[in-house]
Amino acid sequence: MAVRLAELAVRFGCELRGDPETTVDRVAPLDGASPGALAFLANPKYLKHLKSTRAGAVVLDAASAASCPVPALISGNPYATYARIAQLLYPEPSFPCGRHPSAIVEAGADIDPTAWIGPGCYVGHGVRIGARTCVGPGCVILEEAALGTDCRLVARVTVCRGVRIGRRCVFAPGAVIGGDGFGHAPDTDGYVKIPQVGTVVIGDDVDVGANTTIDRGTIGDTVVEDGVKIDNLVMVAHNVRIGAHTVIAAMVGIAGSATVGRRCMLGGQSGIAGHLSICDNVALTGKTMVSRSITKPGVYSGNLPADEARHFRRNSARFQKLDELARRVRRLEGAPAEDTKEDSDE
Amino acid sequence: MAVRLAELAVRFGCELRGDPETTVDRVAPLDGASPGALAFLANPKYLKHLKSTRAGAVVLDAASAASCPVPALISGNPYATYARIAQLLYPEPSFPCGRHPSAIVEAGADIDPTAWIGPGCYVGHGVRIGARTCVGPGCVILEEAALGTDCRLVARVTVCRGVRIGRRCVFAPGAVIGGDGFGHAPDTDGYVKIPQVGTVVIGDDVDVGANTTIDRGTIGDTVVEDGVKIDNLVMVAHNVRIGAHTVIAAMVGIAGSATVGRRCMLGGQSGIAGHLSICDNVALTGKTMVSRSITKPGVYSGNLPADEARHFRRNSARFQKLDELARRVRRLEGAPAEDTKEDSDE
Amino acid sequence: MAVRLAELAVRFGCELRGDPETTVDRVAPLDGASPGALAFLANPKYLKHLKSTRAGAVVLDAASAASCPVPALISGNPYATYARIAQLLYPEPSFPCGRHPSAIVEAGADIDPTAWIGPGCYVGHGVRIGARTCVGPGCVILEEAALGTDCRLVARVTVCRGVRIGRRCVFAPGAVIGGDGFGHAPDTDGYVKIPQVGTVVIGDDVDVGANTTIDRGTIGDTVVEDGVKIDNLVMVAHNVRIGAHTVIAAMVGIAGSATVGRRCMLGGQSGIAGHLSICDNVALTGKTMVSRSITKPGVYSGNLPADEARHFRRNSARFQKLDELARRVRRLEGAPAEDTKEDSDE
Repeated sequence: MAVRLAELAVRFGCELRGDPETTVDRVAPLDGASPGALAFLANPKYLKHLKSTRAGAVVLDAASAASCPVPALISGNPYATYARIAQLLYPEPSFPCGRHPSAIVEAGADIDPTAWIGPGCYVGHGVRIGARTCVGPGCVILEEAALGTDCRLVARVTVCRGVRIGRRCVFAPGAVIGGDGFGHAPDTDGYVKIPQVGTVVIGDDVDVGANTTIDRGTIGDTVVEDGVKIDNLVMVAHNVRIGAHTVIAAMVGIAGSATVGRRCMLGGQSGIAGHLSICDNVALTGKTMVSRSITKPGVYSGNLPADEARHFRRNSARFQKLDELARRVRRLEGAPAEDTKEDSDE
Repeated sequence: MAVRLAELAVRFGCELRGDPETTVDRVAPLDGASPGALAFLANPKYLKHLKSTRAGAVVLDAASAASCPVPALISGNPYATYARIAQLLYPEPSFPCGRHPSAIVEAGADIDPTAWIGPGCYVGHGVRIGARTCVGPGCVILEEAALGTDCRLVARVTVCRGVRIGRRCVFAPGAVIGGDGFGHAPDTDGYVKIPQVGTVVIGDDVDVGANTTIDRGTIGDTVVEDGVKIDNLVMVAHNVRIGAHTVIAAMVGIAGSATVGRRCMLGGQSGIAGHLSICDNVALTGKTMVSRSITKPGVYSGNLPADEARHFRRNSARFQKLDELARRVRRLEGAPAEDTKEDSDE
Repeated sequence: MAVRLAELAVRFGCELRGDPETTVDRVAPLDGASPGALAFLANPKYLKHLKSTRAGAVVLDAASAASCPVPALISGNPYATYARIAQLLYPEPSFPCGRHPSAIVEAGADIDPTAWIGPGCYVGHGVRIGARTCVGPGCVILEEAALGTDCRLVARVTVCRGVRIGRRCVFAPGAVIGGDGFGHAPDTDGYVKIPQVGTVVIGDDVDVGANTTIDRGTIGDTVVEDGVKIDNLVMVAHNVRIGAHTVIAAMVGIAGSATVGRRCMLGGQSGIAGHLSICDNVALTGKTMVSRSITKPGVYSGNLPADEARHFRRNSARFQKLDELARRVRRLEGAPAEDTKEDSDE
């Protein structure tokens, strides 16, 4: 679909420099774009590619516009504006209303006539599905689950019984929402399963990545607030609460009953131990393990960077005697010996 | 389902203090419970909520019973007793016998008449399924696999050819049991796949979480013993053996041919390298990497806690010169220099 | 299937010592093999088992052959030769041509008549599937995806729209190829989704493990080159490029736009941050985090080994003051104080 720059400028509130009749019909990176393609510049690192770009137009900020050799759409937030234009150029595929003949829908399911239940899906008793929600091939939605309007389950998503999902949420293939939380009471001859009688409640505009799992609550619910974005292979355990607009990269694990604040950014493979609380506006760098609550916004790290293995091994062997080394330094300083502090196991 | 406290006391061997005719029909946390709800107190941390609880009854130990303002069910193991009562109050949903008309069952499958094969399932040649086992929607059970009695496959579980599963096992959605182990022999022009000719053998009372994968053995089998509980997104590689009643939190990875003892507890995101052995009664805290065998029961850790990024970076830069720092301390102490010990790569 | 050693020697280019009429029909480990079973010796660690083996024959190198009490197949690369013989003894199960009556294939899909579309599969508009490719039960292949010849999708694999896959690739259950990359532009009131308009391009002879996810590119494609082997629960993010014959163990995460060279070996649970470049022939030990590009081939580590928790805690507490400790050592050495170097946040 080709769109005139004049229309884009009006629709997305940009200042246009250049021919308003120019059209774009696709996106491309600054340094690979040809006429007809829209590019963007949001990161100054790529400014070097601007001067030689052959894009049909570039979305950028006012400061960079002077260096732009092609038509420019000037925006206060070029990345978000680019995203909105790209959504226009690449609309989600349309889908029919109703249900594929191979879909199995149990009696008592309440499905809006504008929703779509795709091939091979199973929809259980008492499920409710809102207007314009698209359930792709091979999804399983168990009894009493409720999906709001305008959601998209791409394919092979599992939504377990009683889960409640808001509006405009997107679920990638393989996501499992509402599996049982992991609760087992130790007993003399093994473990007794704790019934997981809560559910999962997901707000509006939430994205859930491929093969991510969000477990149902033990007593009370697991809650994912509005606007949370979750990448692939993430684990959200029972009774976790994730604050609005928090972004969670791939392979993050959040253990049971932890609370994550609003607008946090959790780096890939980071982990949060159970029953902790992370305040708003906390960022974790990749692979960081949080084992105490964080009460102060900021950036937190906890992972040593990769080093050549033989160097790393040598330093890591020293680490295993670091306490002793510190005591030796103290002695060299002539300070009295510290208490031996045989710390008890917690 | 409302149950009289008198019945619960008899059935679960508790001492009852309070009106035996009081009934409960649900569970709730101590501090949120209202009459009719059963709560429990197992962690002294929550004792503060006991005095003001409005629960219909509380399961607790003898020591706490005196402070309980409502009827009390006194148990030596309140958490396990609570779990058993909750199982009574929240029975697993019942399921029919036979098979859904949309299920595909190949000739030669031997399915107990009391078992259920749900909508959209596929059951291959020679599969055996025991009495009262419920195979939920969208499961795939490949040829020659065998499931014992009273198992529950919630939905979309894959059981590969020849896998053998015991009794009373539960599999959450997306679990994959018996995929090929990861074995490739390097050759001059790439890798040659090693056929994975073993299978997976799972004991009784094993729980497997959502999207967890357990690979089949290369030669010989991957074995999960009785009572093992495995959370979501866990990886159990080929030829691993996991001892009875071991509990494995989410995102743990156990590499090929490792052996884990009985009654271990593996914290979330921890990892065990291949061909190691972990003895019985070992606990790993979250994100710990085990790269040598552990022969002594106890608690093991290996992950630095999160710190403010700028502090962490400074310390981590020092870590990269820790060996040198230790040598400098030795010189300050006036000791002869250590051998330079240019350790060879292993 | 029993095969004569004479035939194996010719077919796989081995020198045979022993009776050429001896047959083998299965594989077994050196120390558990009985007559009729083929074993192999590739790791000197297992040489101790050779003398007492009762195997029908052993694949080994020339140096070990003298100690072999049973017929020997001598090979320059015993492991790869063993793999090839095992493939002969355990052929992949055969499959019919055509499609199972329960499979749903949209109009305009171009499926080679020798391919198989299994029970409960969904194949979208415009999909192309090459000769002898076997699509197992419960797979979903969305519109315009293309699979080459001789691929095997074991079961419940999802291939999203437009993904292109080469020849002889194997996909384990639960793998998701071509889900949307994780891209969201921050805006005043949350995030705006960046359309992911690229796809995934996979070369020949690629293996993808169970529940692994490979996301499609944002602009441009995510690329997995020939011969790459990927284990279970791995995350390959948008616009990543993985060089030929690289091997990736379970639970590795590779963040967006990272480039991994050829013939690398990424240990389990390791992570690579976004926009980095790893050169050819790099090995990462398990759980290593790479946060800067690696330009020199070699082995890299970054994870502290497990230690008894109380020792670890003590050392880890010292780590949190390591920078201070280093400054104290410098003072003891009589050197001028370093700049306080209040490093700015990056």
